[in-house]
This record gives sequence, C-alpha cells and structure tokens, in this order.
Amino acid sequence: MESTGLLVVRTVADLRRAVAGFRKAGRTIGLVPTMGALHEGHVSLVKGALERGDVPVTSIFVNPTQFGPKEDFSAYPRDEEGDFTKLREAGCRIVFAPTKDEMYPGEQLTTVTVAGITDGLCGPLRPGHFQGVATVVSKLLLMALPDRAYFGEKDYQQLQVIKRMVRDLAMPFEIVGMPTVREQDGLAMSSRNRYLSTEERTKALVMYRQLVKVADTVRDGTKSCSEATAVASQALRDGGFDIVEYFTVVDADSLKPLEHVTGPARVIAAARLGRTRLIDNLAV
Amino acid sequence: MESTGLLVVRTVADLRRAVAGFRKAGRTIGLVPTMGALHEGHVSLVKGALERGDVPVTSIFVNPTQFGPKEDFSAYPRDEEGDFTKLREAGCRIVFAPTKDEMYPGEQLTTVTVAGITDGLCGPLRPGHFQGVATVVSKLLLMALPDRAYFGEKDYQQLQVIKRMVRDLAMPFEIVGMPTVREQDGLAMSSRNRYLSTEERTKALVMYRQLVKVADTVRDGTKSCSEATAVASQALRDGGFDIVEYFTVVDADSLKPLEHVTGPARVIAAARLGRTRLIDNLAV
Repeated sequence: MESTGLLVVRTVADLRRAVAGFRKAGRTIGLVPTMGALHEGHVSLVKGALERGDVPVTSIFVNPTQFGPKEDFSAYPRDEEGDFTKLREAGCRIVFAPTKDEMYPGEQLTTVTVAGITDGLCGPLRPGHFQGVATVVSKLLLMALPDRAYFGEKDYQQLQVIKRMVRDLAMPFEIVGMPTVREQDGLAMSSRNRYLSTEERTKALVMYRQLVKVADTVRDGTKSCSEATAVASQALRDGGFDIVEYFTVVDADSLKPLEHVTGPARVIAAARLGRTRLIDNLAV
Repeated sequence: MESTGLLVVRTVADLRRAVAGFRKAGRTIGLVPTMGALHEGHVSLVKGALERGDVPVTSIFVNPTQFGPKEDFSAYPRDEEGDFTKLREAGCRIVFAPTKDEMYPGEQLTTVTVAGITDGLCGPLRPGHFQGVATVVSKLLLMALPDRAYFGEKDYQQLQVIKRMVRDLAMPFEIVGMPTVREQDGLAMSSRNRYLSTEERTKALVMYRQLVKVADTVRDGTKSCSEATAVASQALRDGGFDIVEYFTVVDADSLKPLEHVTGPARVIAAARLGRTRLIDNLAV
C-alpha cells in the first residue's frame, strides 16, 4: 500500500478501498476536492495536506449541478492527463476521477442547502450554485471519508458555506482554508483565467489592485466601506471590466455587508471581463 | 469498555468516545434513532441490532424541526427514566439523549431535502416535516457514525426518505427497515397511541382491519386500488375516524400511487381520531 506514485481511481468502492489501505497503515487522509484544470492554487492545497501529515487525495469532477443553465459547464477546461502529471509531481497519492454516473447514479433527489450566508454575493447571482456545491462536496466528503478537506480562500463564500455545512450537519471532518495563490503580478490563480485573451489578462489585474486599495482604505478608516467600494467599482469599469457584479466589504464569518470594519472582514468582488467571470477577495 | 449495562451520554463528544471504544474492541455499531416514549416497536429495533451482532446505540431526541407549528411537539410524550429502563432490559449499550443546544448549537442554517418521494402522502400534509427528519437523521448518523441504522416500517415514507438520502449522499451507513410491531389485536404500536381514550382505542383498530382488507383485495385483483381504498376510507369514517388524510396503494419504492398492483406495493393510510393522528401501512 505504501508504495509511492499516484493511484487513479474511478469508483467510490475503489476510492474507499485505497483510503482504507492508508488508514490501516496508520495514516490520516486529506481530501482536495477540485473540478480539475489544476493550477498552482490546487497544488498548494495538496502541499498543505502533505505539510499536515495527511495522505493527499484529490478529486476531479466538473460538477454539472453547480453550473447555471447559461454558465460555462460545457466550456469549462478539462485536462485530465495534465492534471494527473501535476498531482504526481505535487506528491498526491490518490486521484478520484469519477464519471457523472458514478457521482450521480440514478436521479439525485437529495440536496443540501445552506441558508443565510448564501443570501448575498454570488448566491442570488448564481441560483442553485451553492446548493450544487454543498451537495457535491457532502458526497465527496462522505465518499472519501477524510480527516480533513482543503479548500482555497479564493472561493471565499464557498469556503464559508462548506465550513458551515460541516458544522451544522456534525460531519466528522475538519475544513481547512488555504491562502489564495496569485500570479507574480497579483492576479488570483483560477481555472477560468484560461479564458482570458492577452488584452483581458492585462485588464484583469485591476481587480486585485482595487481589492488591495479598498482593504487599505477601510482598514485605516479613511473612507467608509460603501464609499471605498464605489470608487473601486468605477475603477473596474474604467479599467475595462464589462459588469461589476459586486464589490463589497463583508464580515468574515457571516458574510453580511459592513459599513465600518471593527473585526475580521473580507473585501470581495465579482466582475465580468468579456465572457469571463472573475472573483477574488482579500482579508481586511 | 466491554462491561455490560447502559451508558447514558449527553454530548456528541461523549457519544463518539463511547462508540470509538466499542469499535476499538472490534465491534460494529447499530444506531436506533428515536424520539423516546419507547414501546415494543423501538425495542424490536434494538433487538434487531443485537441479532445482527451490532452494539445497539439508541438516540432519544424529540426533534422540534420535524413538527409543524400546529402539531404536537409540546404534548409529545416524554418519559426518559422509563425509556432508559426499557433500553437497559432490551440490551441497549449506549443511549444518546442530547439537549436541544447540543443537537442545534447556534442557528441551523443547513438543511437536507429529499424531493420526489416526499411529494405525496404525509409530504404535503406536513410541510417541512421530512426536511426536519432528513436533517436531524443526517446529524444523528454523522454524530454516532454507526455501521447500520434501524428504522421501523410503520413510518414507511420516512424509511424510504432516509434510505434515499443515505444513497444519494453516499453516506457510509446501511439503513435497515424492521417490521411494524403490533398490539395483539393488530393496532400498530406508536408513541401517539398514548393520546387515545378507551373509546378511541377501540375505533383505532378499524384502520388496521381496512389495511388488511385492501391489501387482500388488490392482491387478488378483485377491485382496482382506487375502488378498494374508497371503500376503506368510507369504512374509517363510518368507524369513527374524523378525517381520512389518505388511504392509498403506492409503489413500494417510488411511493407513486398505483391503480393496479404488478410489483412490490404498499397500502398506506393516515387518519385523525379526535386529536390523534394515526398512520399505518402494510405490504401488498
């Protein structure tokens, strides 16, 4: 069991068998749920698992139920062989790459819903998205039965939804949030960055710069949150973004909008650049 | 760990510790989720666990989220000491009797919903009921982490909801349905039978008798399901039931209404006798 190398499994039964093998050898398990098209952000999650002593298990599944009817499910980048190479190099030990039928055998009648923290930000803009995420992540956790699961802070609302779900349902797993990995110029790594043209790639950086600016401004209290984010939204439009879906400062736990920062907060934004939707956030 | 007797635990941490102790000794675990006010039906679930070699763990929690605003949450019978005695005598080893705050610490934002099989029967009559059931049973399963969980067939729709939920969410637990336990005259055991006056107790039997009659009639094809159940509904009203909520024949898995029985089916009824709501069902 303790040979090195990456084991590719396609079924829940094989996944559980592989995980049980490592458990029998006294190891703990760290799950990294992904939709593939892996980048350094995902790799940092695998490394996070290794650093905590967990055997890294990565799942790759482009989950249809978290895409809206007009979203990019079909276009979403898929590169299984490239992903496997990256996982092998990162030290991942098991990759679970199921078919849609293995993830959803028969009709899925059961859904997991997290209220409250999905009321704002991406929630109303992507109806059904977080229900799709909560349901598929529940399934992946219950299939892999890890000790911990690792998620990037880049999808900050998703991370909070999953933390809350695990707590509310008393799931026996620890959820670990890992810092966003950025390109040298600051752009948050994202599988969707592959959609950007060279020109758009340059414009995309405006979002990160404005997040930094708003975080600085509201931290030292120079401006209120709504004043600071109004300036930033305009800067995004001026910088070539087509639609600013939101640019706001929220409480780090409840995700409720803040006017003044008094405790842990997050400045968070979503905007469209051509056909690409970008999201990012920073701690205040 | 392997001393005899019933261990009473009040917290998830103590429950997990007790279960882990039995696991370490190589034992498997059988969970029996209940709302207390235990009768021979519950005892048969504990015995079912013992017969399969599981260490029986019973939970007692009157779950507020599965009662409607006009339902009998406050009046629901509670008899903790009597329940503990019955569990001790039945050979149960752990009873988990949490407070509301232990089951729902902080606001419960997460819910588990099972569509389709909740569309009919008790579903529309008790809005939110099965969501409350699915959510609390998810939590109890994930708190206790058993090998199997035992439920009575008397709450047949509930049993199907839980089986479907466990399958859809890939929960690593087996759900075992156990036959309804009846009084000598055939009345299905129920905690709510305690509500019945002597006169009502006599009338209550009409439901069982009509279920038997409909099952016989539709099995041999003498009448169609709708004809047979129309006769039975009238017999319930004639026998003193105040409201017949439903009396129908359904597919045993999908719970969809049937007109003719060609495979596994269930004749199932709900009706009110004074202030008491009784449900029962039989295999066809």
